[in-house]
Parts: sequence; structure tokens; C-alpha cells
Amino acid sequence: MPRVLINLNGAASVAQGLGRGIDAQTVDLETRHFPDGEHYLRLAGPLRGADVIVLCGLEQPDQHLLPLLLLAAEAREQGAASIGLVAPYLSYMRQDKRFHAGEIVTSRHFAQLLSQHFDWLVTVDPHLHRYHALEQIYSIPCRVLHAAALLGEWLTDSNDVFLVGPDAESEQWVSAMGRHAGLPWVTASKQRLGDHSVQVTLPDLAAMAGRRPVLVDDVISSGMTMLRTLEGLAEAGFSASTCLCIHGLFAESSDALLAQAGATLVSCNTIAHASNRLDITGLLVPAVAELLATDP
Amino acid sequence: MPRVLINLNGAASVAQGLGRGIDAQTVDLETRHFPDGEHYLRLAGPLRGADVIVLCGLEQPDQHLLPLLLLAAEAREQGAASIGLVAPYLSYMRQDKRFHAGEIVTSRHFAQLLSQHFDWLVTVDPHLHRYHALEQIYSIPCRVLHAAALLGEWLTDSNDVFLVGPDAESEQWVSAMGRHAGLPWVTASKQRLGDHSVQVTLPDLAAMAGRRPVLVDDVISSGMTMLRTLEGLAEAGFSASTCLCIHGLFAESSDALLAQAGATLVSCNTIAHASNRLDITGLLVPAVAELLATDP
Repeated sequence: MPRVLINLNGAASVAQGLGRGIDAQTVDLETRHFPDGEHYLRLAGPLRGADVIVLCGLEQPDQHLLPLLLLAAEAREQGAASIGLVAPYLSYMRQDKRFHAGEIVTSRHFAQLLSQHFDWLVTVDPHLHRYHALEQIYSIPCRVLHAAALLGEWLTDSNDVFLVGPDAESEQWVSAMGRHAGLPWVTASKQRLGDHSVQVTLPDLAAMAGRRPVLVDDVISSGMTMLRTLEGLAEAGFSASTCLCIHGLFAESSDALLAQAGATLVSCNTIAHASNRLDITGLLVPAVAELLATDP
Repeated sequence: MPRVLINLNGAASVAQGLGRGIDAQTVDLETRHFPDGEHYLRLAGPLRGADVIVLCGLEQPDQHLLPLLLLAAEAREQGAASIGLVAPYLSYMRQDKRFHAGEIVTSRHFAQLLSQHFDWLVTVDPHLHRYHALEQIYSIPCRVLHAAALLGEWLTDSNDVFLVGPDAESEQWVSAMGRHAGLPWVTASKQRLGDHSVQVTLPDLAAMAGRRPVLVDDVISSGMTMLRTLEGLAEAGFSASTCLCIHGLFAESSDALLAQAGATLVSCNTIAHASNRLDITGLLVPAVAELLATDP
């Protein structure tokens, strides 16, 4: 079966590496907005009979979901053999419970919507908190990849640093990463007061004197947790920190705020950004190849 | 069957009038964005067993489609008896043909998407150009309402005006409106050079001396057609114009540009805007009531 890769919004490096790795032909997709906000979409080649792989991160879901669904419908109509989604960042995982009466559990409906349009899904470190597996809400085969090893490798070059986990929940994987890289670590305690307001308390850092802090988190969104942690570190006499993450959403220009606060940003290329240093392509290729091989 | 109206983004006046007119209970929907761009949605009441009517214009479709689909999925899951969509403005009607190889005919896929989530659709003056009826692309019962009579009524109070249609296509309905209101009319000829660039040529306007121009169009989007027409009118000595439309999208702040050019804006409340003067509620009520009565 011929394989066709369409890159909707992924990092160019990921698209190229993935296309090569699974031996897929790339079909360019021209996208633009009309003045009224509607999308114009034009494919540079046909999809009939092909296994179609769409690379589309779901950060900024309002912006990306509609062209993604329109593209999937087009592939189906043209007679694609299968349509898979590689979404390095998967959104709508946080509302995994009705915390208050009447709240819509958007994670489940969003998962249904994607399951209706795609035959399989590959993603990197989604926010699995109350759900233990994507299959609890997705009705298609899913592969969840983990970038912790990439972060760990990046750390092995650093001897004079210590790791800072933002909250108690991060203890488990920050400690594993620290042990693996032979680096000391601490975890802060975090109190969330609102969407844009958190309080971060650091432990005693006397034992870390002379080392540079590397703040580690899976996602940087509004960046408030990182900012408060940087402030706490600065008060304790630590500067020149690095913020290391898997998914750099950097909502509301938090990348600029973090840079102003003196941090160097390092992220995986799950979301295209100037801070991309860690390449997830090697994780994606075998997972996608396996799903294509088992495709009915 | 109890009836529940949920207003996602419609004008408050339309929601109130429609709710009263069809004897529906309003269930408030709280909506907000998380910093990462995901929607939070919370309903103030249950939907089980109800005929649910959602009021949601599809202007700015990126912004409105996802919460709309999530809400529809929630209503379905809660066991609503039926779910209807009142979309005073319906988007994705313009790409009704593959003009160039590879273009995705988004109108068809968008229509399929809405047809999968709703049981019926009511809208006002959609852009039906190559399609003659919404049923060509929608697989659910649709009612198309026409606001021309509202515009005509508004004009009957004006004796000292003349109507200006923006292009040859508008001749038919501008002339009908002019005849109905006993007012003279002209039509310009329009050449579209790009999304943001049009050329408008006005006919000889000597016979209109002493009258004020009323520019009429179904949709004002980027406003470029209206702006060029206003400039042509100003050169011919006509100022203090009115721009009259059904759907005021006013993309890219074109409402401010048109006001700066000396125009008074008048629109229907299909899209909530300060220029709303003409109320479509009276059109919506009987159409929705009829669809609910014939609901299986």
C-alpha cells in the first residue's frame, strides 16, 4: 500500500524524519484563512488507495481541529485505504471528570470526535491522570510514546546541575531522571489558586550550592509554575536556570516571560518552537510503522 | 416533550425571543478558555429527554465549532430527545466547487460534520450559489429563511435615498427591493482581484442627485467592496451613506473602517453587533416550531 504523509502543523524536522522513516511520500497541503476566518485547503496530490498519515499537533485546538477534520473527511471521500493521526501533543485530556455539576467532560467527547475520523492515533506523553490509558476514551488503536528518555539523555551532558520538579506529582519521574543521570534533585510544592495563579514553595537548597538549576515539567503552558519557581530559586541565590519540558505550549507569550526571567528554554519538537532541542522522530517511526503493518 | 434552548453565541435578543416564541426553557451554558486554549463548558441544567435547540452562529468557525460539537455530543450522551441547530449565519458555503486541482470542497465536509451531530438546521440567507438547496450537502432537514423583507421594511421609512447594489449578481434582489419600497436603485460592477482587493465601478449617478445612498449587500466581511463603493460615491459627490446588510461579519475591524469612511451601519441580528437594527426572531420562531412539531 502506498503511504502518504501530510503535515498540517508539525515541526518540519519531524515531518521529514517521519516520512523517511516509514517510507512515505509527502503530499503538501496548502492552508490559508479567508478574511472571514474560513480555511482554504489544497492538496498537492491524490490520496486514493493510500495509507494516509496526518501529522497534526492538537495544541491550540480551536485553530487546528477544523482543518484536521476537513482533511480527514476529504481523505475518506477520496478513498484512502486508512487514515492515521500522529498528534505529538494531544489536547483535551485535563477535563477527565465532572468536578462540578453540569461540567461537560470534554475529554471524552473530543476523543469520540477524533475516533470517528481516524483509524489510529499516535501521541507523546498525553496528560493521563484519572484515565490510565487512551483506550478508555478513544475507540481506535492508540500508541502513547514517552519522551522521558530524551530528557534524560540531554541531562547526561550536564554535571554541574540539579533538577527541580514543580510539584509532589513530579517526584516520581524527576527522581528517576536524577538517578539515571547521576544528578541530585528536589521537588517544590505547588498550590494552584487559579488558571493564572500558583504558589510554589521550594525546599532548603543549601546542598545544591554551586550547581545550576534545571526545572523539569511535562508541559509548559501559561508558564506560571516555572516563573514562580524561577523567582524562588533567584531568592535562594540561584540564577541562569534552564526550563526543560516535553511539550512547550508557551501560551500567552510565556516563552518571552521565562526568557526575561533569565531562563534558557529546552523542549521536544512535539510542538514546533525555537526552543526545540530534543527530537521525537525516533520515537514516532517504530510506532507508526507498527500500526501501519497491523492495519487491517 | 420539554424544550431546552442553549445560547452559545447568539444575540441575547434573539435567544430571548426564540425561547419565548417556541416555549423553551433556557439552560445557561458557561464557557471560558483555559490558558492553553481549551474550552471549559458547564451547563446549568440537565438535557435528558428534552428537545434541545442550540443557538450558535457559525461566523468565526474556528472559535465556535469545537464547543458546538462538544455540546452536541454532551446532549446526545445525556439522552436528549433531539438536537437542533439554529445557526443564523452559516459558514463554509463559499468553497462549493473544486476551482483548482487538489482544492478541498470544504462546504461538503463541513455540512457532513454538522449533519452527524444535529437532527435539523435552521439558518438565514446562506450563500447558496452553485448549490440550490442546503439538502444537496446536508443530510438533515434544513430550513432556509430570508431576511430581504426585513431590509425592505426598514427602507420603507426612507424617501430620500437610492439603493446601491455592489455587483451585477445583486441586481435581481436590489431591484426587487427598490420596486417594493418605491425607491430608485443602481448596481455597480465589481472585479475581485484578491481576498482583500476589489475594484468597483459605479454607473452615472446624475439622476440620484439630492438623495442619500444606501449600499445593500447580503454579507459584509472584509468590507472592501463597501469601502471601494463608498469611495466611488464620495467622488461623485454623495456622502452620509448607509451600509445595509443581512450578516455583518465585519472581519478585520471593517466596521471601524466603514465608520471612518462616513457610513452608518445597519445589520440584522444574525450576528450580535452594535449595528443590529433588524430582528430575525420573527423569522426563526415558526421555522423552529415547525421542525419541532414534525420531529419523529
